[in-house]
Amino acid sequence: MKAEIIAVGTELLMGQVVNTNATFLSEQLADLGIEVYYHTVVGDNPKRLEELLQLADTRSDLIILGGGLGPTDDDLTKNVLADHVGVPLVQDAEGYAHMMTFFKNRQHPMTPNNLRQVETLKDGIPLQNRTGLAIGCLYKGKKNNYILLPGPPSELRPMFLEQAKPLLQKEFPTQEVLTSRVLRFYGIGESLLVTELAEMIKNQSNPTIAPYAKPNEVTLRITANTMDDTSATVLLDQAEAEIMAKVGEYFYGYGDTNSLEEVTVDLLKQHHLTVTAAESLTAGEFQATLGQIPGVSEVFPGGFVTYSKATKAAFLDIDPALLDTYGVVSQECAQAMAEHALAKAGTDFAVSFTGVAGPDELEGKIPGTVYIALARKGKETIVTENHFSRDRSYVRHSAVMKGLDLIRRAILNKN
Amino acid sequence: MKAEIIAVGTELLMGQVVNTNATFLSEQLADLGIEVYYHTVVGDNPKRLEELLQLADTRSDLIILGGGLGPTDDDLTKNVLADHVGVPLVQDAEGYAHMMTFFKNRQHPMTPNNLRQVETLKDGIPLQNRTGLAIGCLYKGKKNNYILLPGPPSELRPMFLEQAKPLLQKEFPTQEVLTSRVLRFYGIGESLLVTELAEMIKNQSNPTIAPYAKPNEVTLRITANTMDDTSATVLLDQAEAEIMAKVGEYFYGYGDTNSLEEVTVDLLKQHHLTVTAAESLTAGEFQATLGQIPGVSEVFPGGFVTYSKATKAAFLDIDPALLDTYGVVSQECAQAMAEHALAKAGTDFAVSFTGVAGPDELEGKIPGTVYIALARKGKETIVTENHFSRDRSYVRHSAVMKGLDLIRRAILNKN
Repeated sequence: MKAEIIAVGTELLMGQVVNTNATFLSEQLADLGIEVYYHTVVGDNPKRLEELLQLADTRSDLIILGGGLGPTDDDLTKNVLADHVGVPLVQDAEGYAHMMTFFKNRQHPMTPNNLRQVETLKDGIPLQNRTGLAIGCLYKGKKNNYILLPGPPSELRPMFLEQAKPLLQKEFPTQEVLTSRVLRFYGIGESLLVTELAEMIKNQSNPTIAPYAKPNEVTLRITANTMDDTSATVLLDQAEAEIMAKVGEYFYGYGDTNSLEEVTVDLLKQHHLTVTAAESLTAGEFQATLGQIPGVSEVFPGGFVTYSKATKAAFLDIDPALLDTYGVVSQECAQAMAEHALAKAGTDFAVSFTGVAGPDELEGKIPGTVYIALARKGKETIVTENHFSRDRSYVRHSAVMKGLDLIRRAILNKN
Repeated sequence: MKAEIIAVGTELLMGQVVNTNATFLSEQLADLGIEVYYHTVVGDNPKRLEELLQLADTRSDLIILGGGLGPTDDDLTKNVLADHVGVPLVQDAEGYAHMMTFFKNRQHPMTPNNLRQVETLKDGIPLQNRTGLAIGCLYKGKKNNYILLPGPPSELRPMFLEQAKPLLQKEFPTQEVLTSRVLRFYGIGESLLVTELAEMIKNQSNPTIAPYAKPNEVTLRITANTMDDTSATVLLDQAEAEIMAKVGEYFYGYGDTNSLEEVTVDLLKQHHLTVTAAESLTAGEFQATLGQIPGVSEVFPGGFVTYSKATKAAFLDIDPALLDTYGVVSQECAQAMAEHALAKAGTDFAVSFTGVAGPDELEGKIPGTVYIALARKGKETIVTENHFSRDRSYVRHSAVMKGLDLIRRAILNKN
């Protein structure tokens, strides 16, 4: 099956928004064994969109359209597609009910043009929008098939993953099964990982091995192409064993949507352990990262943001003389922050972050210098000196990831 | 002048790389007053690229190609374009000299296929590559014009900015100037904003008005098309005044890269005011948002994350009886958190967040119920009850934005 992805939106052509939807959808379609031959971006212009649909019909079996499902007059994708395939738009009852509930709980009033968002193509299969209002659609035409998705990634992604993807698997089953397994690594860069696995990657055919670098982590997607699940599992297990023999030290978990914070919180839960934090340069980002995970209250009661020297002393009862003697960008400060936070919160772990996010130097230390300490109930405190790079935001993110990994390794006795 | 951007690379169609080049080039071309009508991504396939060039010739004056200039066999963009316009490839002397110097200083040996990277279209204007090896080209055809650029953003961006952009200005001078102004709004949804401005948007021609929804905010880009800067300013000022008369209540700032947090921190700095926070459901996200801004230490000394009931009592000295009586998801808890944080940190403002991020209910309150309080030195505390929607992450983000806006309005006496 050949597919193409069309993004509709003048804001993309003006350079205001990056087309991350095309990247996401391509990755997902590759998973399903569907080949993507084109990405196109076209503005909010009915004539140009219709011309593009005519062209797409000649070269693709599946045409995925993203964007232009909003309430405003320049949101025209649904209308153009309905005209193109020759069916009217009809109101979807489930989408309408969801919209009514949404506005009932809201301070903003509903406007008549919102109703356009719950219209769908007659005879299409509506795709509900759990995180927004505009519903999507799968429309099976005589020759070509179309999927309509909303433009905002926060709506497009869940709609595709939860509804369009299972529907595609059901409606267009393939005989060959592509089975993927994602391995996640922290603490090793992509080029080093690829160098370690060079021989394997060079000789790959089935399963294939695709490395992918994300901020502060690398994932490896191994994909087997087989006729059944059992042989897929055998192939994937073999490849995984070979990979783990080389870089298993850095492996922290499986899965496409997994993360170091989820793995760490799961470990804390499994071992009935709790954690607090005292954050200087990260300013709450470590705790906010924990807070993203539902149910984290079981292992995280709260913590401190001690951005200034004064709050390090006041909130954590650290002796100001220690801060003056060693400076706030120091091992000693990190250790005191972690140990005092542990005592204040009464948790099993306390992690502290102090350093220089940048862009300016602090206490003669260059941006990227970060001390991270892990205080442990009844055990010696671990203090690390780190030198992170790139910009302010990346330094802070690197620090958060390192803090999570310190906890993870402490629980697994791998420090 | 109409332009389109073609990115060549199978890795884009596999979802391994995001097409940020198209975004960058679009922004740059908008600056030059060149309208971009299409972005397309095509794989490393000569036949499909040639078909695409034939189509592009019929609809665009300027066709910009990025990617496929590397040394490997699947890098074919230059060859396909040379065949398309009917000229041979020739070696560029300056590019060749640069390559020789590069390999002289390197440990990697040069391979024969590297020489392909310094070939250019006969009669084209070569674009040197300061940050890499593959040279680019501007080729002026009889009817259409083409620019060839390398794929890696670290090479494409400097080559465009330093060479292609000045060349475009010289070769294709435009008389018209496109001048944009971005207005940013918080507290009004896109559909309501558009309804308020319906008449203006319907009758727009010059300047044009383009609304764009981002998470928890809306921007309006007004763009004037004039012969000089002075008339642009007049047109933009008129449109802005008309917009402000209708929705000025929600306006918070100007600019493409501005944000509610930057505006709020700037206001705090201007008025020499400081802020702390006590965060429950946001778990540090408010403070981490402040922490993104360089120099925020001037106005933000630190604060508290009080996720559990116990830490609300312990870190902030709130009477446990109050928490038991009213519950933690209450106006009373929010008020106590803000006032106690203010006293502890000795700041001018303290903002508190307590509520239900979801997915589960808490104390009989549905997800999205959030109490946000703003304690002020020497003034009455403001307590707000909010009902946010969508998912856990959006509820937390909505709460952070509302907290920022409470501070901003308090400084401007607009609460």
